[in-house]
Amino acid sequence: MTYKVAVAGCTGYAGGELLRILLQHPEVEIGVLTGNSSVGERLGDHQPHLAPLADRIVAPTTAEELAGHDVVFLALPHGTSAAIAEQLGDDVLIVDAGADFRLNDAAAWEQFYGSPYAGTWPYGLPELPGARDALEGSKRIAVPGCYPTASTLALLPAVAGGLVDPTQISIVAASGTSGAGKAAKPHLIGSEVMGSMSPYGVGGGHRHTPEITQNLLSVTESEVSVSFTPLLAPMPRGILATCSAPIVGDVSTAIARATYEAFYADEPFVDLLPEGSWPQTAAVVGSNRATVQVVADLAARRLIAISAIDNLTKGTAGGAVQSMNIALGLDESTGLSTTGVAP
Amino acid sequence: MTYKVAVAGCTGYAGGELLRILLQHPEVEIGVLTGNSSVGERLGDHQPHLAPLADRIVAPTTAEELAGHDVVFLALPHGTSAAIAEQLGDDVLIVDAGADFRLNDAAAWEQFYGSPYAGTWPYGLPELPGARDALEGSKRIAVPGCYPTASTLALLPAVAGGLVDPTQISIVAASGTSGAGKAAKPHLIGSEVMGSMSPYGVGGGHRHTPEITQNLLSVTESEVSVSFTPLLAPMPRGILATCSAPIVGDVSTAIARATYEAFYADEPFVDLLPEGSWPQTAAVVGSNRATVQVVADLAARRLIAISAIDNLTKGTAGGAVQSMNIALGLDESTGLSTTGVAP
Amino acid sequence: MTYKVAVAGCTGYAGGELLRILLQHPEVEIGVLTGNSSVGERLGDHQPHLAPLADRIVAPTTAEELAGHDVVFLALPHGTSAAIAEQLGDDVLIVDAGADFRLNDAAAWEQFYGSPYAGTWPYGLPELPGARDALEGSKRIAVPGCYPTASTLALLPAVAGGLVDPTQISIVAASGTSGAGKAAKPHLIGSEVMGSMSPYGVGGGHRHTPEITQNLLSVTESEVSVSFTPLLAPMPRGILATCSAPIVGDVSTAIARATYEAFYADEPFVDLLPEGSWPQTAAVVGSNRATVQVVADLAARRLIAISAIDNLTKGTAGGAVQSMNIALGLDESTGLSTTGVAP
Amino acid sequence: MTYKVAVAGCTGYAGGELLRILLQHPEVEIGVLTGNSSVGERLGDHQPHLAPLADRIVAPTTAEELAGHDVVFLALPHGTSAAIAEQLGDDVLIVDAGADFRLNDAAAWEQFYGSPYAGTWPYGLPELPGARDALEGSKRIAVPGCYPTASTLALLPAVAGGLVDPTQISIVAASGTSGAGKAAKPHLIGSEVMGSMSPYGVGGGHRHTPEITQNLLSVTESEVSVSFTPLLAPMPRGILATCSAPIVGDVSTAIARATYEAFYADEPFVDLLPEGSWPQTAAVVGSNRATVQVVADLAARRLIAISAIDNLTKGTAGGAVQSMNIALGLDESTGLSTTGVAP
Repeated sequence: MTYKVAVAGCTGYAGGELLRILLQHPEVEIGVLTGNSSVGERLGDHQPHLAPLADRIVAPTTAEELAGHDVVFLALPHGTSAAIAEQLGDDVLIVDAGADFRLNDAAAWEQFYGSPYAGTWPYGLPELPGARDALEGSKRIAVPGCYPTASTLALLPAVAGGLVDPTQISIVAASGTSGAGKAAKPHLIGSEVMGSMSPYGVGGGHRHTPEITQNLLSVTESEVSVSFTPLLAPMPRGILATCSAPIVGDVSTAIARATYEAFYADEPFVDLLPEGSWPQTAAVVGSNRATVQVVADLAARRLIAISAIDNLTKGTAGGAVQSMNIALGLDESTGLSTTGVAP
Repeated sequence: MTYKVAVAGCTGYAGGELLRILLQHPEVEIGVLTGNSSVGERLGDHQPHLAPLADRIVAPTTAEELAGHDVVFLALPHGTSAAIAEQLGDDVLIVDAGADFRLNDAAAWEQFYGSPYAGTWPYGLPELPGARDALEGSKRIAVPGCYPTASTLALLPAVAGGLVDPTQISIVAASGTSGAGKAAKPHLIGSEVMGSMSPYGVGGGHRHTPEITQNLLSVTESEVSVSFTPLLAPMPRGILATCSAPIVGDVSTAIARATYEAFYADEPFVDLLPEGSWPQTAAVVGSNRATVQVVADLAARRLIAISAIDNLTKGTAGGAVQSMNIALGLDESTGLSTTGVAP
Repeated sequence: MTYKVAVAGCTGYAGGELLRILLQHPEVEIGVLTGNSSVGERLGDHQPHLAPLADRIVAPTTAEELAGHDVVFLALPHGTSAAIAEQLGDDVLIVDAGADFRLNDAAAWEQFYGSPYAGTWPYGLPELPGARDALEGSKRIAVPGCYPTASTLALLPAVAGGLVDPTQISIVAASGTSGAGKAAKPHLIGSEVMGSMSPYGVGGGHRHTPEITQNLLSVTESEVSVSFTPLLAPMPRGILATCSAPIVGDVSTAIARATYEAFYADEPFVDLLPEGSWPQTAAVVGSNRATVQVVADLAARRLIAISAIDNLTKGTAGGAVQSMNIALGLDESTGLSTTGVAP
Repeated sequence: MTYKVAVAGCTGYAGGELLRILLQHPEVEIGVLTGNSSVGERLGDHQPHLAPLADRIVAPTTAEELAGHDVVFLALPHGTSAAIAEQLGDDVLIVDAGADFRLNDAAAWEQFYGSPYAGTWPYGLPELPGARDALEGSKRIAVPGCYPTASTLALLPAVAGGLVDPTQISIVAASGTSGAGKAAKPHLIGSEVMGSMSPYGVGGGHRHTPEITQNLLSVTESEVSVSFTPLLAPMPRGILATCSAPIVGDVSTAIARATYEAFYADEPFVDLLPEGSWPQTAAVVGSNRATVQVVADLAARRLIAISAIDNLTKGTAGGAVQSMNIALGLDESTGLSTTGVAP
């Protein structure tokens, strides 16, 4: 069977990556593509890399245009998904690449997003224990944020396995600039970002902080406290998340590796690298793969876990398609690749 | 008075940056330039940006060539400085950009460098309490490592002021590729580093770890424990050090800022940025300036302190010249600039 | 039917890109992978992006190892293909990504490559008139150079259509650093190439010059003279070829566009962009697509034709697989994509 | 004597580079800094690398603010300089980094800039024969465009010396992104420019085309026809101009080099590189130096001349200060450096 799929928000980076992946997906037919300020224009003018769709014309993002599809991906500004979802009805699988339905804590939502709380949808991080059950057959999916995907995959086995004190977690995650979207802002022009590393949203203010905390809370009885610092790195794609927390008890690198190995043994898209190899973002560009490595620093009594993902693929569009596959009952890996485009 | 200065190791990045700065130094005359495999070649073939010295011929690194100078900078492989220093005698100011005389813990030296311990020289980080006294009139200077410079400047006021628990320090520092030197190694070629972030020396193994610890120990009675993770970033120059530690007691951002402000009030090369501004490496490229910012994350109960430096300037050659100025009794800022080359 | 395919030279960039594409090819089974200094090592240590092949062990490049395959790709140093081909016999399809069998002018070969002339094999640029006929059923394929692919595709319709004087052709082509291969050379390390544009092989000395000339000669009765200047650009992948030549007679942009449109109407991998759009290398990264644009500068009386390709895909490995498909009688596009990975 | 200098347009890249250079200029005192949308803001918020001026407040660009200075630099949008100059009077040295007074052909001005023609001022390319005479004592200076500076310096000796046919000139010049200014435009954000080469203004439409032609016309009796293609390169700074033209008569590389050597023998900021060395933009970043190399391609019968400059320094602000020095009767090199910041 072929599923007819629409993408709302087709001219941005998330929309473009969704289309790149959907073009390779054997069970999917790409239907309407909608936008906002670009309505009536050729997709090729906005996504010059999507040659097979170059002559598609951008339609307006309305329920009328999006109707008649089996799956609708939303790559829209925060706060707009609920209204569209309601209009589309309960029979359509809606996959929201935005944040609207990620947080189960209404207060945290309002504090970090400043808009009315809309509730939660099944969370599209299949590697999170229990997530696949919730996704199977679901008609709604909340795609995780890119930083939460990278950070959670790095820390999950350690927190679930009780290897670390989850009240003292530190995360420093460097992201490529596509994570900031396609809007032209002065600090994002090439002249400013090339050759520069800089932090932003420091001190607990980044919106992905409560999402990371929520994910880790799902695998521990303990409290969880996360210090999260995002960095803007001079590259278009990729996230490298460097995570650490105090070791609890007697945890060697060997024990940590065994824990991670077991945790991810059956995961098609998470690889614990061989000892001595470290994640590098270039190796996962364009792939849905997360690479992870872990080491116990016995002098500092801290476990260091590092992950690399492509923020647009595993961190957004690839993760969205992976979850869609589960929801539709397809093989989870359909249309997704673990092969990166490097160098 | 004009000081005659020699640079041993003139074809590498540290040597090149030393010469770039010395060319602007009004009290200095550049004498002999020595190298190893490049002996007899034009400097212009190795340092095409140093136009005024293009036709200088590289001499061999011997005591004979280096004799007759008031100041000798050593930018040599580890373990080679002691022998040369001994031959040059006690009247010459020797500034060692290498690691040989940085650590006061012989065991740590042997563990991290694997060669015989040579002792210590006055440590060229003038911002460290007491350092200027030791540097004044000294004939020997050990230039700090680039990561220790960035990390120490970010953490010093917090540790000295007792704002944080120094036994739980986490540092993630991203460096431009010039920090790895000029030797051609497969993982450092442009095709590999452009578009990629990757860690190395993870888990406490990087040689700069004990040096950072030693610096922080000098301002606290407490034990100090540092988890240090260096990252290779896709840019030629710059270090962004993201440091954090648990807050002790009631420390707000305002208190932290006041502490930093006071600590660095008289420092010519360290700037606490205005609240809301964050260090970015591009702004300090080519300058001897370190920018610092600090914030208290009260939710995570962690203080975040971030610094940016140019690894080759303040992190190596600029810091070396700053210390030389102190040793010679010159104004500390002579020949050094706080203006970066951006964008 | 599934073809069993070997790749000799699997650890370099051409070999890695061949494997990336072959992993997506539905009619291919990847057989032995051979190398030289890396024999016995995991492929994952050399090509960390090729996750599905990470645990493959590199075999030695010998006829014994390569025997028993339907197709053997050679990504080897110049001058080594002939001996291997002879040992493998006439039944095996050998696709040589090296230069050994590209030039039909023995004197030019010897002048530019300095080794004995080995002859020619059918030339794997299907867009060249007559090339498909020669490739169909062939057991030998000489894969074009990356610059010749980009330059030829930009100029072919103009020269074939008599729009320009082919004795006054100027080509300036900027390439990503992967074109220089994976060998660690001082001028190719990231610190040197990031932030820098530089030419090399200027003045007619680059080995791809006679190959470009040969291609253009095949579509004109005129003499052909090409001034070719390659530039090293600070990016891992991509070639942008800016080509120009004096206009002959009355050639407007409209006429030129019509000529190009007709010439490439049936080509699956060459796109004349809409008027006003210009090729950009990022849009074709990872794809087998060449984008082309042409304009008549009536003031300067010169036709400007510009193309963009991925040097490793359409410029090497993708072009190789495209030609393999033709030789095997498969659909020419099998396993190849026109979708790029951007941003 | 110290000259009091104002900079109008202090928040853009040209303004920032002017200030960076003026900070090093021993005969200059930096006076008022004016802007437009940034009036009342700290300069440090716009130019974080200019530490010594961080707390300066941006004033409005009015004749009142600019009055009382010896020198006023204008880094303003095209078409706005004439009105300000008139208000400031004839006693003030006005150095216009914009295009308003560059072209002596009113028709060309109107065709390329689409605004009323304002006339010409002495042209600030001292290396152009006769330029210094016109600049000495002048109260008005038109700073050349960045591409014309690079292209003219590459071609001048060849055209002046009759080595080439100036009716068949081809220029392909790759520029860093700062040449496009600081305005946030979608195609200039980091995600789009990193990893990509792309052309723009192709086919004779770029505004710098008539300026290049005008410069070359000043040294030849022949007609001049220039095909000019600018490329956007993934780096913040630098221009590499690859220029070529048919050789006239018997011109070897040796003859060409001798011609260039003689032409630039006394120029403090133009270096013909040793044979075999080629210009690279990284070596001139932050310097006022232009590097040039030339070779005769006897097979293609074309002379190739290549230059590298920093578009913001020699190409804009450094060239402006060099001309200011001449106008004021100072040593031409005052405050300017030939040392680049590399890597």
